[in-house]
Amino acid sequence: MSNNLLAGKKGIITGALDENSIAWKVALKAKEQGAKFVLTNAPVALRMGGIQELAKECNTEVIPADATSVDDITKLYTESKEILGGNFDFLLHSIGMSPNVRKGKAYNDLNYDWLQKTYDISAVSFHKMMQTADKMDIMNQYGSILGLSYIAAQRTYPFYNDMADAKALLESIARSYGYHFGKRKNVRVNTISQSPTPTTAGSGISGFDSFYNFAEKMSPLGNATAEECADYIIMMFSDFTKKVTMQNLFHDGGYSFTGISEELIEEMK
Amino acid sequence: MSNNLLAGKKGIITGALDENSIAWKVALKAKEQGAKFVLTNAPVALRMGGIQELAKECNTEVIPADATSVDDITKLYTESKEILGGNFDFLLHSIGMSPNVRKGKAYNDLNYDWLQKTYDISAVSFHKMMQTADKMDIMNQYGSILGLSYIAAQRTYPFYNDMADAKALLESIARSYGYHFGKRKNVRVNTISQSPTPTTAGSGISGFDSFYNFAEKMSPLGNATAEECADYIIMMFSDFTKKVTMQNLFHDGGYSFTGISEELIEEMK
Amino acid sequence: MSNNLLAGKKGIITGALDENSIAWKVALKAKEQGAKFVLTNAPVALRMGGIQELAKECNTEVIPADATSVDDITKLYTESKEILGGNFDFLLHSIGMSPNVRKGKAYNDLNYDWLQKTYDISAVSFHKMMQTADKMDIMNQYGSILGLSYIAAQRTYPFYNDMADAKALLESIARSYGYHFGKRKNVRVNTISQSPTPTTAGSGISGFDSFYNFAEKMSPLGNATAEECADYIIMMFSDFTKKVTMQNLFHDGGYSFTGISEELIEEMK
Amino acid sequence: MSNNLLAGKKGIITGALDENSIAWKVALKAKEQGAKFVLTNAPVALRMGGIQELAKECNTEVIPADATSVDDITKLYTESKEILGGNFDFLLHSIGMSPNVRKGKAYNDLNYDWLQKTYDISAVSFHKMMQTADKMDIMNQYGSILGLSYIAAQRTYPFYNDMADAKALLESIARSYGYHFGKRKNVRVNTISQSPTPTTAGSGISGFDSFYNFAEKMSPLGNATAEECADYIIMMFSDFTKKVTMQNLFHDGGYSFTGISEELIEEMK
Repeated sequence: MSNNLLAGKKGIITGALDENSIAWKVALKAKEQGAKFVLTNAPVALRMGGIQELAKECNTEVIPADATSVDDITKLYTESKEILGGNFDFLLHSIGMSPNVRKGKAYNDLNYDWLQKTYDISAVSFHKMMQTADKMDIMNQYGSILGLSYIAAQRTYPFYNDMADAKALLESIARSYGYHFGKRKNVRVNTISQSPTPTTAGSGISGFDSFYNFAEKMSPLGNATAEECADYIIMMFSDFTKKVTMQNLFHDGGYSFTGISEELIEEMK
Repeated sequence: MSNNLLAGKKGIITGALDENSIAWKVALKAKEQGAKFVLTNAPVALRMGGIQELAKECNTEVIPADATSVDDITKLYTESKEILGGNFDFLLHSIGMSPNVRKGKAYNDLNYDWLQKTYDISAVSFHKMMQTADKMDIMNQYGSILGLSYIAAQRTYPFYNDMADAKALLESIARSYGYHFGKRKNVRVNTISQSPTPTTAGSGISGFDSFYNFAEKMSPLGNATAEECADYIIMMFSDFTKKVTMQNLFHDGGYSFTGISEELIEEMK
Repeated sequence: MSNNLLAGKKGIITGALDENSIAWKVALKAKEQGAKFVLTNAPVALRMGGIQELAKECNTEVIPADATSVDDITKLYTESKEILGGNFDFLLHSIGMSPNVRKGKAYNDLNYDWLQKTYDISAVSFHKMMQTADKMDIMNQYGSILGLSYIAAQRTYPFYNDMADAKALLESIARSYGYHFGKRKNVRVNTISQSPTPTTAGSGISGFDSFYNFAEKMSPLGNATAEECADYIIMMFSDFTKKVTMQNLFHDGGYSFTGISEELIEEMK
Repeated sequence: MSNNLLAGKKGIITGALDENSIAWKVALKAKEQGAKFVLTNAPVALRMGGIQELAKECNTEVIPADATSVDDITKLYTESKEILGGNFDFLLHSIGMSPNVRKGKAYNDLNYDWLQKTYDISAVSFHKMMQTADKMDIMNQYGSILGLSYIAAQRTYPFYNDMADAKALLESIARSYGYHFGKRKNVRVNTISQSPTPTTAGSGISGFDSFYNFAEKMSPLGNATAEECADYIIMMFSDFTKKVTMQNLFHDGGYSFTGISEELIEEMK
């Protein structure tokens, strides 16, 4: 059932890899709520997922783009504007990858070339998407831009490795650009710190399962699902949140403000 | 235009004093979005405001209650349940008052009897509303409870006096009770840290005007209005935010994460 | 061995109950570092502890005072000034008690008269100590005032009950009064958020042991001991920290910024 | 007068450019407190400053090193160990530079090659210094590592440009590495968020003066000086703070927890 929360709104959704992805669910719900949007992902990711099916279901197109390339972003925006018939009201950045994590390099044995890639893919790409949108003046007044973060940006989770620092960088970029985009265009910029989510990306991290269980026991409302995160994102794209900006928004069932739960105390006995 | 965000939901709205009140606007919007609710305020406040008109407009009733009295709250809930025909999905706590502020006692010359009243009215009443609801088992699963806070709970604003400490207490009570209500009933509890708002209550504080202007210049999106705050509250009562709990949520146009703005730098020159 | 960090400094130390107390260790170290001070505790606490021995060891006196009584505080300050031969450079507030915790009332079944006592004893007493000192103009320039807090002020630990809210209030009072004392007298005011510490007070809390172990496994440096906390307090009383104020200072072996440790991940498997 | 706080301790001090530098003052005070250390700076910086004089005054040597080069850091540590006759107890990272700031590129017109340099010089160099120390096993048990940050890492100050994001990254690296160094060697890692300081580096930023005045009016104790910061750093290197780790420590006269001061309210009228 639709509440028409995004009626007439246009945007870009990155990062829909497969049906477990948060971005995938955002696309389905954005469609339901009346939005028009273009899907995009890195060329290499496109080969793996069934994103074309999703595009068909959403009555839209997929434009491949490497989010570390300003040229690709420019092309993505130009073509999307044509497809959508106008400027954008929302952008979802759901992009992150660490070669050090992938290749099993520990945090005290990082490869610094790979570290730079981690930052470039997972954080600087967010700045590039915003700076390009800003220069092309392609965001509408009171638009909404979101990135996906994780609490490891604020406290240490050893398994999260250099992605923790990349997320801290992402959150800072959201604040910094949020100031500028707010001043000039009333556009809001935020990140969402979501519960550990068993997406294809998330599950790849070693130790994910035991941490997922830890967070489930810690959170008074349980871990937030990908579906619930998509609901929250729809709300953040809607006109009901026009003055929320420059924040990292926790969407985690109470995890981040719970020091310990009774279940965990029981287990420690 | 309605998005049916609160279709079928029932609740209690405190603190609607006059049409400048955030709670007043919440009532109008909640009605529009399909909610049924009861209005309440302290007997003394009821004499001043036009809340009966609001009740008529919202097709509901006003039940006087002193939120520092567990008996009054119990009566309010019992009668409201009958009027609404069921348990509650949302509660809005919008209550605060400091005798020290009213009577011009400075923070370094507080009257301690009055200080206790400040805490009791502005913070403990929130606990009482929740504990009473909990004992009466009158909240529905996945309900949403909100209190209104202010950034003075986290940084010092001298003119805010002992209300700052009361708001810090309020935010802590939201976290603490949010844990318990989450565990047992999936009910979420949050506070909203709203921009300075020219309500009748807000404007009474000495220095309010110059601070309002300061915040307006600081916030990239400008101060959030009472109307915008009401929109945000509707969203926090809706099913789009079911996993957000135990938080203080900033709704302030970017104020709280802006260190300084270019306008203010200009003025300092 | 002394570093003469407090040579010539005078002050008041509350809360030394027995040799497990943080305040007890502060007294011994303050003596070693050249300070002169008066010990105080509530009349009822004095009957239990061996504080007279401590006083002898520190070559000082004990003045009974109920910290919820402005009269008692006034008398304490007047007599201490005479004993010490001058105004104060430091105050340690190490006072907290919850009748609800003592009598086993859960957070969703609080007795509100007792709740008021919790706040009065554990938080408002800090304001009273400062307001009285301020009115008597008994603090020296660049003095240092400290209270002891706990991370439950910022995240929920269910076993900590209404003391969590009292600590949030204490931290807010430190910020609020820190502003005023800073402006007028360059006096700094802070709270310290210390690891769970097996003091006589701490150990009384149900669930303390399992939480102590949880925190020990979480903290990269292990839990901070009472002795280490006393060292840190000495530093905060010294002239090496003159511009640190209005803060809650974590002294916890890294606990508060660790999301999860490898040991705990292992245990969750 | 010495308190012998660093008697027998050995370390490395980066970033002493001239006598306005915080690092310069740290060197003088560390010497006074009994430490032995080696000074280092980038080859290009060495040409400008009078660091050789400082070295003479401190009875030590200067080893040029580019902190973005693991080879240079390795050489620095190897030679320093020889000069000092043992492993290190402390490291001070006081390094930061943004080509975008220098060349006047605004935050919404960043050059991405320069942005990478900003991160590499101002933040990744801290990781490199720690990873190299870790691999060489050259830190003593209970050593202390410090970086210098700025509140722009947490709230937006437009004039600070991409350095804000670099400082957020620096603070995250401190947390992340603090976990690992704590676990294995009981070494603590922190950053200090210092008041705006009229060093040669700081004063170069456009808008610095007006912001310095703003902060001076905001801070109840006034801005912390470079000298006071050096005192605080000495304490953080001493054994009085052995359990403080993974934190960003505010040293700013109360600035960061003051929302507004009475002076500023007056000016806004």
